Amino acid sequence: MSEEIVVIEGDGIGREVVPAAVEVLDAIADDSDAVGPFEYVEADAGDAVLAETGEALPRATYDLAANADATLFGAAGETAADVILPLRDAVDSFVNVRPARAYPGVDALRPETDVVFLRENTEGVYAGHEDRLSADLSTLTRVVTDSASQQLAEFACEFVEAGRGPDHRDGFTVAHKANVMRETDGRFRETVLEVADERGVAADEELMDAFATKLPLDPSQYGVVVCPNLAGDVLSDLAAGLVGGLGLLPSANVGTDNGLFEPVHGTAPDIAGEGIANPTAAILSAAMLLEHLGYTAAGGRVRTAVESVLADGPRTGDLGGSATTAEMTDAIIARL
Amino acid sequence: MSEEIVVIEGDGIGREVVPAAVEVLDAIADDSDAVGPFEYVEADAGDAVLAETGEALPRATYDLAANADATLFGAAGETAADVILPLRDAVDSFVNVRPARAYPGVDALRPETDVVFLRENTEGVYAGHEDRLSADLSTLTRVVTDSASQQLAEFACEFVEAGRGPDHRDGFTVAHKANVMRETDGRFRETVLEVADERGVAADEELMDAFATKLPLDPSQYGVVVCPNLAGDVLSDLAAGLVGGLGLLPSANVGTDNGLFEPVHGTAPDIAGEGIANPTAAILSAAMLLEHLGYTAAGGRVRTAVESVLADGPRTGDLGGSATTAEMTDAIIARL
Ligand SMILES: CC(C)[C@H](C(=O)O)[C@@H](O)C(=O)O
Ligand SMILES: CC(C)[C@H](C(=O)O)[C@@H](O)C(=O)O
Repeated sequence: MSEEIVVIEGDGIGREVVPAAVEVLDAIADDSDAVGPFEYVEADAGDAVLAETGEALPRATYDLAANADATLFGAAGETAADVILPLRDAVDSFVNVRPARAYPGVDALRPETDVVFLRENTEGVYAGHEDRLSADLSTLTRVVTDSASQQLAEFACEFVEAGRGPDHRDGFTVAHKANVMRETDGRFRETVLEVADERGVAADEELMDAFATKLPLDPSQYGVVVCPNLAGDVLSDLAAGLVGGLGLLPSANVGTDNGLFEPVHGTAPDIAGEGIANPTAAILSAAMLLEHLGYTAAGGRVRTAVESVLADGPRTGDLGGSATTAEMTDAIIARL
Repeated sequence: MSEEIVVIEGDGIGREVVPAAVEVLDAIADDSDAVGPFEYVEADAGDAVLAETGEALPRATYDLAANADATLFGAAGETAADVILPLRDAVDSFVNVRPARAYPGVDALRPETDVVFLRENTEGVYAGHEDRLSADLSTLTRVVTDSASQQLAEFACEFVEAGRGPDHRDGFTVAHKANVMRETDGRFRETVLEVADERGVAADEELMDAFATKLPLDPSQYGVVVCPNLAGDVLSDLAAGLVGGLGLLPSANVGTDNGLFEPVHGTAPDIAGEGIANPTAAILSAAMLLEHLGYTAAGGRVRTAVESVLADGPRTGDLGGSATTAEMTDAIIARL
């Protein structure tokens, strides 16, 4: 029986890098009896479909993602929030896994960076209860629960126990702002540290502002970093700046038995349509998808091939090369 | 008539760097008929006074700060939030001015960094209405008003018009997360951009997560950055990591006719009491205090002397030197 992967290219370079990632999935499935076969179901989301249909995320796309084994998503333009936030909900994702690694061969401000952010994916300010209380004043209700914090912390412990964190650091760091958000981030902090303690996983903590100072000064201090939703958004994007930009960063929105995999980058309107976008982040997202489906070895093969090409293979313009998306993808497939 | 400056050393290295900054103020006042005289009123706040009296911020200290011409504050330990947040309120501060500059002679990850953050200082998540709604769930009500956003934006426009921003960039950038916090950050964004438009000040915008990626990649893109409260906290601390750490960063909490001046760094318990703390941030905070009192030339003299010592004078251990706090302070005074 084949596994169903929903493929949502979205807008801009999503239409170029997602097909590249699908080619890589195909190559792996063709090459290995243990992987696949995959059935791809294409679905629409983003600015273009909004213009056509009036909906950035058609109900059909939401339902497909909700019922798939996994979804591969590219990027959406102006409608990004209208697409990605409901899609995370569709796959019941409680954690956004965001590895940020510098790769040999890629110019990075901090080549020693190797951090994995585990970002809470359902609440915080993203729970999004906003009100316009008067002509002058608006409010947003930020939500933190024990249950979501606990689920995240258990995932973090399993992640660490399974050796999925970077080698240079034991356990994990909780980043928060509990000195100001005492009740909400206090709850988050306490719950996460308690779970770690119960499970015997080493955990330390850092205020998110101090973390933002210290990460650029010495990224080697950190390995796995557990954060509330918005903190995870900002701090993982900061890490992207240290490893050479968003073009390399994959992410996994993990649910109990579903998942949505997406590059961290956007639609890059300045180069969209030219066939020169860097497919690395999308291909590494496909590697995370393979691992999520249980194909750990295949995921590792993709990652190794990507690393090999980044080290000395053809590369796209953002990495200082002149390869097209297709050339770089072919090189990765050739080294699988 | 002398001007009253309330001096709150606080804890840890606050007790070393604040006296150093006061020495510099004294030297300037002694040397120039146009400056001072100053009357210093010492007041307590922080962990030590909490242990003694049960209050981290005694009412008397709050009142002194509220009625002074300006207050110079050092740092507080565990009680930082209990001290600094009410003190900002005491001086009616609506904006926290945080310059982050790399200095010739100081090892910096991004030597081209020259950014001034104008952080909203009264609301956002710091307005701090938190509730424990159930055993599982807590909320925080984030507050954004037109009035506070407008006051900040007007300050930003005056700041830019007065040429107080870095030379390499016109106007200012608003950093926000209005794609998720549509009503609250939407209000903030719109109000700030509207004021800029009315006053003919160039303003662009950046999502705060994108800003966190781009600042390390190329800080020269940014000059003055206007942010909501927590965004300003985190993004300015990120900039600190690019210029070599918190040891150099001053800040001014500016109110309508009062002000609180403080280094961005904390109490540094690991080196407190040894007389080796870097006084730069506190002395630059004193320079901001001078400017706030209208002594623009004197503030500039202090800044120039600090830069000169950072370039080739004696420096403390955090900057790779072996000077004591006193030696570095003396060198700065000698070059005034
Ligand atoms: C597009 C936006 C809503 C989204 C987020 O804030 O989560 C993006 O920044 C991301 O990190 O995937
Ligand atoms: C101590 C803390 C409450 C404070 C803040 O968050 O504002 C500090 O981080 C700062 O930036 O001055």
